[in-house]
Amino acid sequence: MLKLKNIGIDTYRNSVAFMARDCSLYRPEEYQALKKIEVISGKKRMLATLLIVDNKDIVGPDELGLSKQAFERMGLDENSPVTIAPAELPQSLEHLRRKIHGHTLNHKQIEMIVGDIASHRYSEMEIAAFLVSCAGFMTSSEVLSLTTTMAQAGNKLYWNAPVVVDKHCIGGIPGNRTSMIVVPIIAAHGLTIPKTSSRAITSPAGTADTMEVLANVDLSMQEMRAVVESCNGCIAWGGHVNLSPADDILISVERPLGIDTREQMVASIMSKKLAAGSTHLLIDIPIGPSAKIHTQHDAMRLRKLFEYIATEIGLHVDVVVTDGAQPIGNGIGPVLEARDVMAVLRNEDNAPTDLREKSLQIAGALLEADPALKGGSGYAKAEQLLNSGEALQTMEKIIEAQGKNEAMCAGELTHDILAKEDGVISGIDCYRLARIARLAGAPMDKGAGIDLFKKIGDAVTKGDAIYRIHACFETDFAFTTKFANEGDGYTIRRDA
Amino acid sequence: MLKLKNIGIDTYRNSVAFMARDCSLYRPEEYQALKKIEVISGKKRMLATLLIVDNKDIVGPDELGLSKQAFERMGLDENSPVTIAPAELPQSLEHLRRKIHGHTLNHKQIEMIVGDIASHRYSEMEIAAFLVSCAGFMTSSEVLSLTTTMAQAGNKLYWNAPVVVDKHCIGGIPGNRTSMIVVPIIAAHGLTIPKTSSRAITSPAGTADTMEVLANVDLSMQEMRAVVESCNGCIAWGGHVNLSPADDILISVERPLGIDTREQMVASIMSKKLAAGSTHLLIDIPIGPSAKIHTQHDAMRLRKLFEYIATEIGLHVDVVVTDGAQPIGNGIGPVLEARDVMAVLRNEDNAPTDLREKSLQIAGALLEADPALKGGSGYAKAEQLLNSGEALQTMEKIIEAQGKNEAMCAGELTHDILAKEDGVISGIDCYRLARIARLAGAPMDKGAGIDLFKKIGDAVTKGDAIYRIHACFETDFAFTTKFANEGDGYTIRRDA
Repeated sequence: MLKLKNIGIDTYRNSVAFMARDCSLYRPEEYQALKKIEVISGKKRMLATLLIVDNKDIVGPDELGLSKQAFERMGLDENSPVTIAPAELPQSLEHLRRKIHGHTLNHKQIEMIVGDIASHRYSEMEIAAFLVSCAGFMTSSEVLSLTTTMAQAGNKLYWNAPVVVDKHCIGGIPGNRTSMIVVPIIAAHGLTIPKTSSRAITSPAGTADTMEVLANVDLSMQEMRAVVESCNGCIAWGGHVNLSPADDILISVERPLGIDTREQMVASIMSKKLAAGSTHLLIDIPIGPSAKIHTQHDAMRLRKLFEYIATEIGLHVDVVVTDGAQPIGNGIGPVLEARDVMAVLRNEDNAPTDLREKSLQIAGALLEADPALKGGSGYAKAEQLLNSGEALQTMEKIIEAQGKNEAMCAGELTHDILAKEDGVISGIDCYRLARIARLAGAPMDKGAGIDLFKKIGDAVTKGDAIYRIHACFETDFAFTTKFANEGDGYTIRRDA
Repeated sequence: MLKLKNIGIDTYRNSVAFMARDCSLYRPEEYQALKKIEVISGKKRMLATLLIVDNKDIVGPDELGLSKQAFERMGLDENSPVTIAPAELPQSLEHLRRKIHGHTLNHKQIEMIVGDIASHRYSEMEIAAFLVSCAGFMTSSEVLSLTTTMAQAGNKLYWNAPVVVDKHCIGGIPGNRTSMIVVPIIAAHGLTIPKTSSRAITSPAGTADTMEVLANVDLSMQEMRAVVESCNGCIAWGGHVNLSPADDILISVERPLGIDTREQMVASIMSKKLAAGSTHLLIDIPIGPSAKIHTQHDAMRLRKLFEYIATEIGLHVDVVVTDGAQPIGNGIGPVLEARDVMAVLRNEDNAPTDLREKSLQIAGALLEADPALKGGSGYAKAEQLLNSGEALQTMEKIIEAQGKNEAMCAGELTHDILAKEDGVISGIDCYRLARIARLAGAPMDKGAGIDLFKKIGDAVTKGDAIYRIHACFETDFAFTTKFANEGDGYTIRRDA
């Protein structure tokens, strides 16, 4: 038997095992060709990728090393005796091969694939193969099977309420932190809205990153339940709740590959909502030249797929198509976005009107899910809850319940980007601004980001500041300033 | 600056860099999100996947570790000062995304992708995405571009001869070592046939593995040239010649994913032959229930694609469809196959007639490439060269020129598989036999494999030995015997 050793290398989601080339028990070349092995201790078996090591400091001939995550997943002490065996390849790979070669899969086959992905039996290469073959062609039935099997592969939440509402934006628009305004409005009204959000992967802030400026979002399932029981709603990071874990794994490969298909998006969102126990869901699809969806036609196709899946899984869904021509609100980056959110909740004079208006529309539509409310009165009710300060009070209650955080400031290194000519702002490149905010350090540096002074339609004179970059570190700052000066993402139309 | 360190972990084709979580110079989380970094020393830049390490024995705060291959690729001494930067992603990823989303790529776009693959700028995940999107849909023009750009991305061989012949079998049939008989016949006739072959990846032996039983196959380009100059031909491993390196990389991902499309196969084979400087090529397509190609229709479609590409790149190609119902020859595994080859070349009475006949047909067809030979006389000429012993002499000369190896024996652990009933052999599962031979240790243990005593059409009585398993190690032997007894791969039809 080999002695188990924690190598302390962080290999993300991949489980990796390390064997000495002069291993006393196995011939590494024999296993190396397989690439995958099973690490065995009694009834415990874990699949791992095998790497051969020529360095005694890492693994000795009588040891088997495991990467950090693999060691945790195995759950044994160091020096525990283990054996290895050639990996039994996941049976579902047979179905994956069929999908690659153009066949359609049935529910059972997709269930097997999703099960193997959720239990970490697929390599990144195999996940990429699954995603790309789905991007090539996927029937509505396959999308439905993917949605339901992904939801089943993780936790399922149950709420003691007849109506559980949720909202989701398909993303791509910087700022746009409507959830943090919608949740307190809905909760103030008395409907249940247990909102879990993601952290940014490729954007400058996710709702979880921004909420974290104000409160702890790192809630266990029990903590989340307690907050929802006392406040009707929460705004928590979804990471501990383990909803649709296969989806998280797919996303980790989807993003670097830039795969962004309608089918994948719908299955991803709907599986999470199904698992979260929602009954009524509002989907926000922003359209714009630099948004994810560019045309009404594409938005309609996406809406129809959402509606089909929602009907099949028994979820009420309302899809709204919104203006995605430019960022929503003025801030981009956690601290600056949180400032906008609180300004709207506090009804401050300088609160961004676009963020306020969009949040009211979404909250209004969601309030219609309340059978007690007169049809068509949702918007007015939402406005009343916001204007009266009830939404603000509920937000403060949620913040207290989740655990209030120390106040944070915007990054102190600032640089203003100036208008290059006189005219009217006619376009803002969401993608470019997101990139600039990320380079400045967002979302890792909460205070980093961009503060917009001008939006589409605003008149500018040459030399006017159009936005301000905030950064926390000198190197990021210099790099970002240079990048923004090379292309600020704004288009100015000269007046006729 | 960080000090470079060779970590001594074998990461195959992936370049991996290791940074301490408490790195003194960089914030690892910032780079970890990117997954890929560029390691920089002066003008040298190398792309690597970044892993974070919590183990001072592996990398200290002032060090940057590199995996074995990455360290070699970087080509610097340990402790050399290096910096890192966020990786500039390969520009061709933009084209890959288009392909994933169903677009057709032009020559320039495919050239960029192939160039980035050949220079190790693609991760396995990205390679999988490229392969799977190509498996979904690929135009003939795309296959052509893939062929020519892969050929251009590596070395190109030139031979001082007007006619340079080559042969290639699409594989899948155990035994079938015709190349080792065809090459000496052609070379004996005086045509140039510089044969490079692969080692087995998923089969029990490649031609390079089998030739290695007799001679050194590990030839540098110069050594290969010298052998061809003195003998007209060689049978060498292609690994040092670096023909179509992008193809090797694609294959390393294709195999584990089980991707086996016509388009990929043709581009792979033709790119290698184009780079090898062949002028006349014979392609062998075996058809059979357990071969790669099952029907005449599929064989014809494959033939047409070979012919289209050959015409476009100016190569004479002759496609022959052969019987792939069962293994060719009696031995499966390097030593046993080499024994068959030498028996044919020596015109021994017990030499397998199917191997002899198939080799003569291929050699005969290739000899027709000689303008001096009367049309239709190729087969007779091949037979004469074989029967006269000229082919044997040439083989011996090639063996001497490449470097003769010590004689090797078949594995001494043997087990006979017996007929379970009386009847006639009506089917042999090539896939099952290949699996059994591999489990026995082939190709790594040269003497491991299977020796067939019965072929299709042979009458058997219950208890007759139908084949013998040879193994070199007790554990492999026990496992293989058990596996073969569970299913021996033979079908016996009872006599009517």
